[in-house]
Order: sequence, then structure tokens, then C-alpha cells
Amino acid sequence: MRICWFDDNRLGVVRKSLVHDVSSVLSSLSLIYPYPEGDPLIANLGRFRPAMESAADEVDGRPLSEVKLLSPVANPSKIIGTPVNYRKHVAEAHADPDIDMTRFAGSVIDQGLFLKATSSLVGPSQGVAVRFPDRRTDHECELGVIIGKTADGIDEKDALDYVAGYAIALDMTVRGSEDRSFRKSVESYAVLGPWLVTADEIADPDALDFELSVVGEVRQKSNTDQMILSVAKQVSWASSFYTLHPGDIIMTGTCEGVAPVKPGDTMTCTFEGIGEMEVPVRAAG
Amino acid sequence: MRICWFDDNRLGVVRKSLVHDVSSVLSSLSLIYPYPEGDPLIANLGRFRPAMESAADEVDGRPLSEVKLLSPVANPSKIIGTPVNYRKHVAEAHADPDIDMTRFAGSVIDQGLFLKATSSLVGPSQGVAVRFPDRRTDHECELGVIIGKTADGIDEKDALDYVAGYAIALDMTVRGSEDRSFRKSVESYAVLGPWLVTADEIADPDALDFELSVVGEVRQKSNTDQMILSVAKQVSWASSFYTLHPGDIIMTGTCEGVAPVKPGDTMTCTFEGIGEMEVPVRAAG
Repeated sequence: MRICWFDDNRLGVVRKSLVHDVSSVLSSLSLIYPYPEGDPLIANLGRFRPAMESAADEVDGRPLSEVKLLSPVANPSKIIGTPVNYRKHVAEAHADPDIDMTRFAGSVIDQGLFLKATSSLVGPSQGVAVRFPDRRTDHECELGVIIGKTADGIDEKDALDYVAGYAIALDMTVRGSEDRSFRKSVESYAVLGPWLVTADEIADPDALDFELSVVGEVRQKSNTDQMILSVAKQVSWASSFYTLHPGDIIMTGTCEGVAPVKPGDTMTCTFEGIGEMEVPVRAAG
Repeated sequence: MRICWFDDNRLGVVRKSLVHDVSSVLSSLSLIYPYPEGDPLIANLGRFRPAMESAADEVDGRPLSEVKLLSPVANPSKIIGTPVNYRKHVAEAHADPDIDMTRFAGSVIDQGLFLKATSSLVGPSQGVAVRFPDRRTDHECELGVIIGKTADGIDEKDALDYVAGYAIALDMTVRGSEDRSFRKSVESYAVLGPWLVTADEIADPDALDFELSVVGEVRQKSNTDQMILSVAKQVSWASSFYTLHPGDIIMTGTCEGVAPVKPGDTMTCTFEGIGEMEVPVRAAG
């Protein structure tokens, strides 16, 4: 099943090139404050899926090309990033002082996971707004993993059972000396889309081809089998430090080919088993 | 006004040593999903304050000693930390390899702000659970600033207008090589309490005495006038990278005297203008 949010916070099911508005199912969601941790739709996805399928059967779809795609997770409690998780990216980063790896020696395990502010999250149609035009802002295309249920100290062998689905992620990054969690949290610098593909549709998340091009030029091209830490290992490791909640997103690290973007560019990202998204780049207003 | 959450998510107003349950005012809060960014009570605090005062007048208070104090902000969208913001802490960190400053050369501006996972947030009564007993876990006592309204690219001179209030913060930290946003996000490693003191009660947040002791021994003792970056500067700077939402928390940096805690310890933190909180330390279960 392919799930999206679109236009003015409408919930959609994507079938072929059509979006079916299934927002009506949300009327059965009971909301309380203080909010429980985690995204309430993702937390209840098992319960909602049959109703979403039925609702999608009953309404005509609209062409994807006519809707504005938002982040397919509305309210993640955290966005986690995995650094230096592809060997060829590690090599390029060490070779290029502008990528500024010098402060961060050591393996991905030595460096630990980082966080991106949830306020930085957008969907592909919202695009990326370059905030510091005098600094280098790079694309980092990667697999986005969406947690499906509360995970605290789980084993690697069980970890994929805690995954709700996958999406394409762009971990946009300002290069510089500051903490990753600052440089990577600029407004619109976490892109997730074009939709969430539920985990049952991805046989092996560690064997997916992906590619990013900018105005027709292929910049990044790899396969998730090149990751140093598998998806399951990342989920298990994250849960050894903090509790993962439904809707939490792990951006699993980028491959080689990171490079700057500028206003006017369009990034096209394709991921095997997920689809394709176009993300425009503009100057921050 | 002093606002707390207590027991089983009850909303309280603190007067002298009594907590008045004002949860009834929350019935007028309308909740929608997707959640708007920011904590809905803090976002509407101006509107709620008169009702909270009236409700507090009408109900008997319970002794503070009888209630379990939770974080005074229920749903922050992010928790921000300011590193190396007291010169004497910078000096002690450089002198002690165990504090592991070596990877992070440069001033606080060079290093940038960091994030702590919201899943790590607890109130004083919930205590700190040491997760990695073979590693060093330190207390870092600091002023917690709670944002009151959406702030994007605001000037330093206006920044304090965006502050809802203040609380005592403990930025608990596992020492090691990993990214700050990983080591400082362990479950229960962000303590906020004992209540939120609204900004109108703090004439100058940059001139507050504070102290942390562990089982009677004073470990940290300073004044916020020793901060390298003022509260206003931190709020303005943060908002130049990302949007601050109501309820977002800035932990403004710790003074010298950081030191390890162990299960069985109790940390006592006092802050001028705010009050005192006791935080027990236990082993993670």
C-alpha cells in the first residue's frame, strides 16, 4: 500500500498514477492531549489499513501530477540520520575538505547517529529553500525508514518487524563546522516522499537501486546493499540509545556523489520499489 | 505564574508549596490531526492563563511533596542544546580528555547548536536511568528556556518576546565519541522542571544564580551572567537556522563542575527565580 499526504493535509492512497482521498477514515481517530509519543496514524496503521483500502475503492482518484505531495509522515517525533554509511561516500568526504569530515574521524559506530529537527520536514512538492546562499548546500539521497511501533532495546533479528514502511529521503546539508544536527535541520532540509510504501511491499530494504539526478545529470547512483550498517542494524542500534516511536524516521545514509544545489535546480530521485520524486530548489524567501 | 504537569498528566498551577489542579481548562482545547507544530497549551498560554488562575482559585491545593512532577512542557517539537557556553566549562572540558572535547574545536558559534530527542524528556520525579553503567554519564545543570510563539529569523533585540518562560534543565550526557545528539538523547537524559515560571516573573534571565549538588556535595555553582551567548542571542541564532515553535526548549549550556552520577545518587538543582528540584538517579531496568 502506498500512503501519502497531499494538498491541504488530505490523506491519500496511491494506486498507479492516481491519488484516492481517504481522509474520511481519520474521523475515527481519537485525539488526546498531552499527545502520546509518535504519529497517531502510523501507530494505528494496522487498524486503519482495511478502512483506507475500502475508502480508496469508493472514490475516484486524481492524477498525481495535479496534487501537491507533502511528507508521507505527518508528525514524526524524531528524524534520525546515519552518517558515513556508504564506503565510497566516506572516501569522497575524506578527499574533499569542503565536506568537512575532519572533525568526525572513525566509523559510523564511532560517530553515532544524529538528529534532524522535525521542523525541517517537507514533502517533495514543497521543495527545498536554500537558506545560506554563500555556503555549500548538498543533496544526500537515501532510503527513509519509517518506524511502525514502539521499539526500545530490540534485537537486530527482530528489527524489521518494527518498520512500517519506506520512502525516499533527502538529507539536505549545509557544509561547515557546526554540529550535524544544526546544519542538517534548516527549514525544508529534510525531504520525505513521494509516499510511504508499506513494508510488506519491500522484500529486502538492503537491496534497492537508487539514483539522484539534477537537471538531467546523474549525481548519485548506488544500491542499499552498499550500506555499512543494514536497515535492521540501524533500527536495533538506535533503539539501544532511545525509544523509537511510530512515525520516527531514519535516514539511512547517503552514497557517493553528494554535490551542491542552487535555486532553480530540480532534484529527481528514484528508488527501486518506491518510485520517483521531483524536488525543486529555490532561494529562501 | 508557575505551571506544571503532575501525576497522571494533570495540569497544575503552583502557588507556594501547593499544586492546584487546573486540568479542567483543557476541555476548551480543540485538537486536530495532523498536529500543528508546537505544544498546544504553550501556543495558547495567553488565552489560557486567566482561566488557569480562576481554576486555581477554586480548587484546594495539594502539597508539592505529594505529587509526581513531570516535564512542565508536555509536547515540545524539539529540544535544543547550546554547547560550551560557559568559559570555565570550556576550560575544564579541554583539560579533561574524558569530556572529549577534542573533536569539537572552536567557539560555541563554530560548533553550532545541537538537538536532544524529545523521547528523552522527563520531569524530576521520573528521575534519570543510567543506561550504560560502564560509560561516564555526567550531570549538566543549566537554564531551560521555553519558546512561546513561532520564531523564524528574529532579531536578538526582539528575542525575549518569544520566550514563554523558564525552567531548570539537566542535559544529562554520556561521554564518548558519538554525535552529541546521540549521546545526549538517551531515554530520561533530558530533565525539565520543577515547573515553568512564566517570563514575566524573570526580570533578567542572564543574571540568575544556580547550583547543583549530589548527595549534599555542591558540584556546579554559577550564574547565567557567565554565559558566552545570552538567552536572546541563542533564541535569535537558533531561529536563523530553523523555525522555533511554541514549547520548544533551549538548554542554554552548563557551567563548570560537570561530573559523573551513579545509581542511588540524587541531584538537587536550585535556580534563582525558579526554585529547586530533586532528581533521583537509578540504573536502567
